[in-house]
Amino acid sequence: MQPQAKTPFDPAEARVLDASDPLAPMRNRFDLPEGLIYLDGNSLGAMPAATPAHLAQVVKQQWGEGLVRSWNAAGWFELSRRLGERLVPILGAAPDSVRVCDSTSINLYKLLACALQLAPDRPVILTEHGSFPTDSYIAQGLIDQTGGRRRLKRVAADELLAALDRSVAVLMLSHVDYRSGAMQDLAQLTQAAHAAGALVLWDVSHSAGVVPLDLFRHAVDFAAGCTYKYLNGGPGAPAFLYVAPVHQSRIATPLRGWFGHARPFAFEPDYAPAKGIDRLLCGTPPILSMAAIEPALELWRDLDLAAVRAKSVRLTERFIALADRELSGLGVDCVTPREAHKRGSQVCLSHARAWPLIQALIARGVIGDFREPDILRFGCAPLYTRFADIDRAILSLREILLGGDWSRAEFQQRKEVT
Amino acid sequence: MQPQAKTPFDPAEARVLDASDPLAPMRNRFDLPEGLIYLDGNSLGAMPAATPAHLAQVVKQQWGEGLVRSWNAAGWFELSRRLGERLVPILGAAPDSVRVCDSTSINLYKLLACALQLAPDRPVILTEHGSFPTDSYIAQGLIDQTGGRRRLKRVAADELLAALDRSVAVLMLSHVDYRSGAMQDLAQLTQAAHAAGALVLWDVSHSAGVVPLDLFRHAVDFAAGCTYKYLNGGPGAPAFLYVAPVHQSRIATPLRGWFGHARPFAFEPDYAPAKGIDRLLCGTPPILSMAAIEPALELWRDLDLAAVRAKSVRLTERFIALADRELSGLGVDCVTPREAHKRGSQVCLSHARAWPLIQALIARGVIGDFREPDILRFGCAPLYTRFADIDRAILSLREILLGGDWSRAEFQQRKEVT
Repeated sequence: MQPQAKTPFDPAEARVLDASDPLAPMRNRFDLPEGLIYLDGNSLGAMPAATPAHLAQVVKQQWGEGLVRSWNAAGWFELSRRLGERLVPILGAAPDSVRVCDSTSINLYKLLACALQLAPDRPVILTEHGSFPTDSYIAQGLIDQTGGRRRLKRVAADELLAALDRSVAVLMLSHVDYRSGAMQDLAQLTQAAHAAGALVLWDVSHSAGVVPLDLFRHAVDFAAGCTYKYLNGGPGAPAFLYVAPVHQSRIATPLRGWFGHARPFAFEPDYAPAKGIDRLLCGTPPILSMAAIEPALELWRDLDLAAVRAKSVRLTERFIALADRELSGLGVDCVTPREAHKRGSQVCLSHARAWPLIQALIARGVIGDFREPDILRFGCAPLYTRFADIDRAILSLREILLGGDWSRAEFQQRKEVT
Repeated sequence: MQPQAKTPFDPAEARVLDASDPLAPMRNRFDLPEGLIYLDGNSLGAMPAATPAHLAQVVKQQWGEGLVRSWNAAGWFELSRRLGERLVPILGAAPDSVRVCDSTSINLYKLLACALQLAPDRPVILTEHGSFPTDSYIAQGLIDQTGGRRRLKRVAADELLAALDRSVAVLMLSHVDYRSGAMQDLAQLTQAAHAAGALVLWDVSHSAGVVPLDLFRHAVDFAAGCTYKYLNGGPGAPAFLYVAPVHQSRIATPLRGWFGHARPFAFEPDYAPAKGIDRLLCGTPPILSMAAIEPALELWRDLDLAAVRAKSVRLTERFIALADRELSGLGVDCVTPREAHKRGSQVCLSHARAWPLIQALIARGVIGDFREPDILRFGCAPLYTRFADIDRAILSLREILLGGDWSRAEFQQRKEVT
């Protein structure tokens, strides 16, 4: 067989790349299991080494000792805002335009409702087929709830520009396709939407922390995303939302909880929105999950996002190059764009039997994940992914495909993974 | 002054009550700060002793070691359901009718939207003036969002029965008034609402865990509440929601996230509701905050809720009796109903200068809280509040009122507390 005849990997190559990687020391600030190759940081980010001690302190001192006094004394009331300010440089946001609260789904609901208020006479919410399904579900829920005066229009990614006409109220898109890793041109699409008189709502779950976003400079209207992927905030960690300063005082959230009230402790019978972006807060936030985000964002304090992106590009580049070289003729295709500026920080391969293949890979200690119908996803997290990890993943895939262990019965059984 | 002339407290009395209290050993299952008298479990419950180790294990093993695999291996996907099943006996719910997710505010929004779907032709959401303001804000937001066809009608508690006419779609009430501690008659009002053809939505935040609720037996349609008060789930812990089995397949949540989809991992472009109550889930849940609820609910495994309620009544009874005896003539009134069946597990006193008074009390290590305009709140949590704590709180209040230290400048400055 031809693939077997190829030169074996030279491990020295990745060693040199890792040794000269300016971000390599960041890996020491994570606790990763010995020997595991973790390429699923696009789904759940690794645990920062500082998190367990920080959370233990929050639990034992702030909750256990401080009890209810910690709402003030430990700054729990301020946590949504404090975490939001930490995200300002990561998102390229304006000060006081980001808050951490609720889930991405719920934040998308709030923001889409707000965006629609600003475009009362336009019927269309425009999105594309590859956007994360929840984004569509949220839009559908909102449309049904508000009497069906709007409709969701889904087109192919390359038809978006043409579809941006005067009927469009909001362009609602995933920045990076969760399944292919393809990245939309946020600047161009935002500009085109504005030229058509539409607003934009970006789901930046798969780009926050790995791609410089410049939300403010690009005049993005609304954005939301996860803190548990490349931002390493912990499983299901509360999400962030962004509202351009110009819109903040013009919008009204449909989810009016006391945390978004102008005077929450006056317990007034009627709702009055808080100033600015705080009006998008709703109920009491889950402090323990919020607190775990803090040491994670601390890692970004001295990071240069351009350097993070540069490493991300080199990691995905190497992944694609090695996949081309080592997996060709083995039924594997790379579905992620080969032009660096058209992809996020994950590489997706397709294979007719992707499910048993990923199971066999996981059994060998290389964690990627599966997405319907035939996709193997590998996330490169520049803060802890090593070039050697990429080599090991490709080599393992090659061995599995050649050795046939992926066709063993134990790997056939379907069970859901994130 | 007459109050000074009274017999001093006999500490033996409370000692006897605590020694014969069958629930007294439960206090050992909490970590409470030495010497502190904590009477604010109605706002933030104390920390169960088992929580820090459990959470450390979730963080270090499940997240740190298990990483994304823990969604299956550690049962994270099942956490909403698992915690919900733990709440079934506490709420008197039917199996598979409770889930833990999101915040109370957001759950109220979902449930109110669902309830309104079932009563499309009735314009009124009925509530009373003492219900928690967020409940009204949520209703107002939903009314605005759905085009203003409904209206919120607020009446006095004793006018509710008369106001239940054919215009009412939903009766939405706080079971226990957060400010006065007064408890509505859940059974009677539910029955009256049903007789008028209306549905009920109860906010049981201030009664879950201290009052047997029997939601299923009383045919309650919808309910929601906090897990961070008497249920000790941790600061801002995710909330629960209850839907009567008869309604579960008839309702559609406006907040359609992938966790509520029939096949979340099929990533289908269109929303299809999950079977039963799972359709009310929305986005990815905050696992760390969810996980902290588990050891807290474990405490209830062998508890008899009737015994919990019996102790609660005796604690509040003693609080009221001592307040009457020791604080009379000192400007303090008890605003909590004196009939045990008309109150929850908190006692509220009024005083013209309640704010500096509560500050002075907190400075003495007795934690209660303040509510506008003139209320001092004291929560009795039968799992860890001792009869001696009640005595100490009353004695401290008396000393402060007689000694005048509450009028010191340091206690005048207003700052918000929960």
